[in-house]
Amino acid sequence: MSVKIGIYGYGNLGKGVEQAIKKNKDTELVAVISRRDPSTVKIATENVPVVSSDLVKEYKDKIDVMIICGGSATDLPKMTPELVKNFNVIDSFDTHANIPTHFSNVDKAAKESGKIGIISVGWDPGMFSLARLYSNCILTEGEDYTFWGKGVSQGHSDAVRRIDGVLDARQYTVPVPEALEAVRAGKNPQLSTREKHTRVCYVVAAEGADKAKIENKIKTMPNYFADYDTTVHFISAEEMKRDHSGLPHGGLVIRSGKTGANNENTHIIEYRLKLDSNPEFTASVLIAFARAAARLNAEGVSGCKTVFDIAPAYLSEKSHEEIISHML
Amino acid sequence: MSVKIGIYGYGNLGKGVEQAIKKNKDTELVAVISRRDPSTVKIATENVPVVSSDLVKEYKDKIDVMIICGGSATDLPKMTPELVKNFNVIDSFDTHANIPTHFSNVDKAAKESGKIGIISVGWDPGMFSLARLYSNCILTEGEDYTFWGKGVSQGHSDAVRRIDGVLDARQYTVPVPEALEAVRAGKNPQLSTREKHTRVCYVVAAEGADKAKIENKIKTMPNYFADYDTTVHFISAEEMKRDHSGLPHGGLVIRSGKTGANNENTHIIEYRLKLDSNPEFTASVLIAFARAAARLNAEGVSGCKTVFDIAPAYLSEKSHEEIISHML
Repeated sequence: MSVKIGIYGYGNLGKGVEQAIKKNKDTELVAVISRRDPSTVKIATENVPVVSSDLVKEYKDKIDVMIICGGSATDLPKMTPELVKNFNVIDSFDTHANIPTHFSNVDKAAKESGKIGIISVGWDPGMFSLARLYSNCILTEGEDYTFWGKGVSQGHSDAVRRIDGVLDARQYTVPVPEALEAVRAGKNPQLSTREKHTRVCYVVAAEGADKAKIENKIKTMPNYFADYDTTVHFISAEEMKRDHSGLPHGGLVIRSGKTGANNENTHIIEYRLKLDSNPEFTASVLIAFARAAARLNAEGVSGCKTVFDIAPAYLSEKSHEEIISHML
Repeated sequence: MSVKIGIYGYGNLGKGVEQAIKKNKDTELVAVISRRDPSTVKIATENVPVVSSDLVKEYKDKIDVMIICGGSATDLPKMTPELVKNFNVIDSFDTHANIPTHFSNVDKAAKESGKIGIISVGWDPGMFSLARLYSNCILTEGEDYTFWGKGVSQGHSDAVRRIDGVLDARQYTVPVPEALEAVRAGKNPQLSTREKHTRVCYVVAAEGADKAKIENKIKTMPNYFADYDTTVHFISAEEMKRDHSGLPHGGLVIRSGKTGANNENTHIIEYRLKLDSNPEFTASVLIAFARAAARLNAEGVSGCKTVFDIAPAYLSEKSHEEIISHML
């Protein structure tokens, strides 16, 4: 039985989901839903309609799971509770502080409709959250560390782009190797923001712009850069396009814990991602959880769920016999 | 509500479980069950009885979960299906090829008794299996790699100890750094047994023993060493005790996969363990799954389960509100 997928929103993440569907033979793209005029949206899959969001309800019985590819700031807090009234949904809501509120809004709507909504799916939150939870359940005494990068932070890149005289910018977050090594060695260091990550910016400046001023504005920008050691490189528009058009990312979740009568034994659990394409990897996670959503709802499960609430077997295209024979 | 635990078998693993219970405030050790004469078994916890295995059924209503700390070769295939007739059980059955048979034996007995049995819990099988499953569900096109070590292999150490003239031995399995780097770089190498791991032996020889002969016997031993590059070091009994009395282990599970319309993007998912004490870490995993077994059975779930079948939230001592607020 094929899982019929709808993609709601066709940006980088929606395009990633479209590609991920092609890599999961038991899934099928039914429609791309867009808030734009559908005639202006060209998708990569043949014979699949682009549908105006005004008409989304017409797909109520044609889609098993809607994957909502909107932004966490303003889109998802509205879209997910609204869409779960008619669809099983997956989102990648990533504003950590607002997850409990989002959970409760989605849960209420989903319980009323009998649908399931799995929120905050992706890698952080998502796979990194799972790494944190599993390792905390095993090593109850210890310290958690999350490092991000090396990778492009879109929020920080946008912040630099808003500076006068900046035509384009790309910001990489980079873990500090010494901090990482101290953690891996089980030293449980207390690390300040500055000690954990550095920030590296590539900037295309307008002709005649004051580069020293731009560099100073970046390095002193509160919240974004002031607490970090930041390096700024000015490059040409051609170099930007040639060397920085990808969206790589990744990072590490490490738990360092102790066991034994006198805490004499140290254990390190490390989960690491190195991703060429942040949106395509996130999309690949979304599809696996969409499969789980379809199965769980078919079993009668409804309400809001997170990656913590899904038994891993539900994510696999393979049968239970196959996974216990070949992966356990 | 505290989870009442019984430990069945008091070797290295049973002792590890006893320590792990002290690190999980919501668990409580009720009894250690032994096949030995209980008066000969000294445990590390005060006011807890050591009970003969003949009397185990007397504890049927006093224990929520029995953690079976027996060997996979002959103990667990009998013990787990037998004990699940009266108890929720956890085991660390690790003979990968026989897991489906063990699963079906435990499942039959558990469904009859209404109890739950979670099998093959630990790190491999166990946490490594979870790393394999999650990463395969996300990256459907790719290659899997599992490396073990650096760590002590007890089976290989025992094999060396059986050679004439060997008084004591310790064998370390070590991943080959070049192989690891090629995998991490996304090169998807095809690796032979010899290319993945080396074996390092520390041997205490009897006085007057023919060391060259011992070394040759080790290096040419079929299945255990012949397919590997093996190094043999002869040391004194004092050095053995001083430098090799721990049971460190660990390893890595890596999946290297591709996404994108033309497979143009490579992603690496790496799960790594570095453990000072193999039995204490395994025991820490067992306790987390014991908590899940107690909860699931209280909800009416019975039958055989594996790490794949348990939603991660069941492993945590913390409330759902707490984990979605602080770990997601």
